[in-house]
Amino acid sequence: MSDQSKIILSEDRIPASWYNIIPDLPGPPAPVMHPATGKPVTPDDLLPLFPMGLIEQEVSTERWIPIPEEVREIYRLWRPTPMFRARRLEKALGTPAKIYYKYEGVSPAGSHKPNTAVPQAFYNKLAGTRRIASETGAGQWGSSIAMACQMFGLECTVYMVKVSFNQKPYRKSMMQLWGAEVLASPSDRTNAGRAILEQDPDSNGSLGIAISEAVEDAATHEDTRYSLGSVLNHVCLHQTVIGLEAKEQMAIAGDYPDVVIGCHGGGSNFAGISFPFLADKAAGKEVRIVAAEPQSCPTLTKGVYEFDYGDTAKMAPIAKMYTLGHDFMPPGIHAGGLRYHGAAPLVSQLLDAGLIEARAFGQTGCFEAAVLFSRAEGIIPAPEASHAIKAAVEEALQAKEEGVERTILFNLSGHGHVDMAAYDAYFAGELEDYAYPAEAIRESLCRLPKVELGD
Amino acid sequence: MSDQSKIILSEDRIPASWYNIIPDLPGPPAPVMHPATGKPVTPDDLLPLFPMGLIEQEVSTERWIPIPEEVREIYRLWRPTPMFRARRLEKALGTPAKIYYKYEGVSPAGSHKPNTAVPQAFYNKLAGTRRIASETGAGQWGSSIAMACQMFGLECTVYMVKVSFNQKPYRKSMMQLWGAEVLASPSDRTNAGRAILEQDPDSNGSLGIAISEAVEDAATHEDTRYSLGSVLNHVCLHQTVIGLEAKEQMAIAGDYPDVVIGCHGGGSNFAGISFPFLADKAAGKEVRIVAAEPQSCPTLTKGVYEFDYGDTAKMAPIAKMYTLGHDFMPPGIHAGGLRYHGAAPLVSQLLDAGLIEARAFGQTGCFEAAVLFSRAEGIIPAPEASHAIKAAVEEALQAKEEGVERTILFNLSGHGHVDMAAYDAYFAGELEDYAYPAEAIRESLCRLPKVELGD
Repeated sequence: MSDQSKIILSEDRIPASWYNIIPDLPGPPAPVMHPATGKPVTPDDLLPLFPMGLIEQEVSTERWIPIPEEVREIYRLWRPTPMFRARRLEKALGTPAKIYYKYEGVSPAGSHKPNTAVPQAFYNKLAGTRRIASETGAGQWGSSIAMACQMFGLECTVYMVKVSFNQKPYRKSMMQLWGAEVLASPSDRTNAGRAILEQDPDSNGSLGIAISEAVEDAATHEDTRYSLGSVLNHVCLHQTVIGLEAKEQMAIAGDYPDVVIGCHGGGSNFAGISFPFLADKAAGKEVRIVAAEPQSCPTLTKGVYEFDYGDTAKMAPIAKMYTLGHDFMPPGIHAGGLRYHGAAPLVSQLLDAGLIEARAFGQTGCFEAAVLFSRAEGIIPAPEASHAIKAAVEEALQAKEEGVERTILFNLSGHGHVDMAAYDAYFAGELEDYAYPAEAIRESLCRLPKVELGD
Repeated sequence: MSDQSKIILSEDRIPASWYNIIPDLPGPPAPVMHPATGKPVTPDDLLPLFPMGLIEQEVSTERWIPIPEEVREIYRLWRPTPMFRARRLEKALGTPAKIYYKYEGVSPAGSHKPNTAVPQAFYNKLAGTRRIASETGAGQWGSSIAMACQMFGLECTVYMVKVSFNQKPYRKSMMQLWGAEVLASPSDRTNAGRAILEQDPDSNGSLGIAISEAVEDAATHEDTRYSLGSVLNHVCLHQTVIGLEAKEQMAIAGDYPDVVIGCHGGGSNFAGISFPFLADKAAGKEVRIVAAEPQSCPTLTKGVYEFDYGDTAKMAPIAKMYTLGHDFMPPGIHAGGLRYHGAAPLVSQLLDAGLIEARAFGQTGCFEAAVLFSRAEGIIPAPEASHAIKAAVEEALQAKEEGVERTILFNLSGHGHVDMAAYDAYFAGELEDYAYPAEAIRESLCRLPKVELGD
């Protein structure tokens, strides 16, 4: 075993292909339904929203999909990302466990999101798209798609949830620096936005509304396409560069994880770190895979595996996934990127098949783990990533209690330099540790769509 | 020549020794004078402020000073830092020049400052120091010394200029996360602070006042020492890891710079990137070294090479350096880290000897270069680092105009994720491009101390 603390790869080790998990699933993925007709979506249905290159990836059954050279060239600006052995954290915990983390915060946007933003912009450029419309909550995704569009000479319009637009100016500034037009949503640019503003001129907006605006913008402009930062198969696919590199880095370290952990919101960073290890598992290797989600938005641990709309406004396709109901409104935790009612269909299918586990944590415990981590390892984690840290710390403490060795790998999906207000709130004792919102979930689950599968 | 875009080193290539430029200077450094007696400072004079390990480094004439294993172990969390070939920037400029940049923003604090914070904390720990007192303006240095103290189990008190304490909450939050006590300066903790508050209870503070408070705190507490983030010889020494790694990375790229560029405030990041290349120059190699400073605080281009106080309050030693006068108050540019009236004595001596060049730039042009850089390379530069980018862009455009090849290396000393408000101001057209403050400089230069050198 190597005694390195940081395992790095040279840039020629950026993966040449993305790993598509679909051929290794226990069964074929469930169909995706059109929100209006309730019938299975065809590739042609998706053409107003996505370029054919991405639609093909969404449904591909090829195990390996080559990464275009133009994408790898931009990946080189931050990939391969480093993997660290968290020796100082291990010592602070007094655990016999070995803890490794893959660090995606070195990208220019500070998170894993550019891994998919760049290929999405590329395939759009290839298809002649002039402009991309997308939505963002706190801005992690918006800043990444803005950067990617800038690099391929595409225009970019980001509908940013108004409450974040007003309260989180830093990520808005990043989007503008990278040349995007950022609109507070609801905006007067779309029918969806205008309808909301008419009812409530002071609406703070929501991710659901912002998605509706971006989808309408794309659908009503010939030269404009829509882009989504999580949930979809092709997004999970692009993120597998994380896990592919991590496997190679574990091999350099002369080690292999007993457990692989990612935080889970829509599923993209979790898929990124875990799918390549699930390929090993499919081939017979023993490895546990753990998704760490917020207790206040417990999609995987308390949701149901049913067909549901991808968005609140019921404009997005209906997919079979773990869901809390499309109109469930999660409490305002600081890990804004984990506040999604559903889960990636691929992740959902894996959970349903018992191939992965899920655990939910309250935000106070997650911030406590993040502070412990910062003080030991230096890096300040994004609030989303703190859920993965919390799960890793629990695994390490359990190993200590049981007196067993255990090799833990987690994905540190982003840094928290733009989220320091959340740490302030933690230290001021102002963080609410929202309990499991059972009642709200029960209600929203009553409103799942009825889907009849044809034969 | 390699066609790599990113040149990385494995962690065993972290330098084993720092490079001390003193034996390679054209002559011995000028003595440093005690602010009260006007006589040369002895090592014993410095003991209330610094541990002996650092005092020895301050005056050492050894060319190579081994880096303790405990320091290298922490360096591993971010070192070696990557070097990039800025191919996309070259293309945007249409220049035949090759542009490389060393990127120090990957440290947990987001800048080069931890390179010296860590050894400073280490030597203090070794000497039995319980607590470190320091000052910070916008917080780059304060956050780095806080992190380093946390890692060696030292307490840390940071006197933060009150206007930044109130207006720049993010770096204050980082300091607190890393366990430091952060006080708005002027504070009621010191005589210096109380005296100011008595005159003006609403004082916004200044770096000069904050230095006075930290120095007094250290001098009046047996178990407390003082720490400074720039200017001093041992600080420049620690930062040479930047240039030492960069030389090795240039060799991997099969290239060597015609010109090496660093931004210049107190001199530490400039020294870090350039001193190892000056060693080559001393050995006969042709290489130009350029310091890039703000036009509003033009220490190297418009200052005088004289003895002056290191701080406004005349409590710090008197050193021979390029200075604008110790009570010169620079305009409020966004590159807060470059607002220092003096320059590192080592850098000053090199400039006086004609071994380095200096150029001054207005902040609008620097932000323009930073935006160009962000859109080409992704990374968002700190406002300080934008001065180095501006100088590199000018060099590249000149090469284009002259139709010559030129290899340019600059240090990208930090990222700007915590400085997005400055970019907002740039895009809003609100940035003032302060002219050369000739009158203020002329006045402050009248108040230089009179120093008589004994023989």
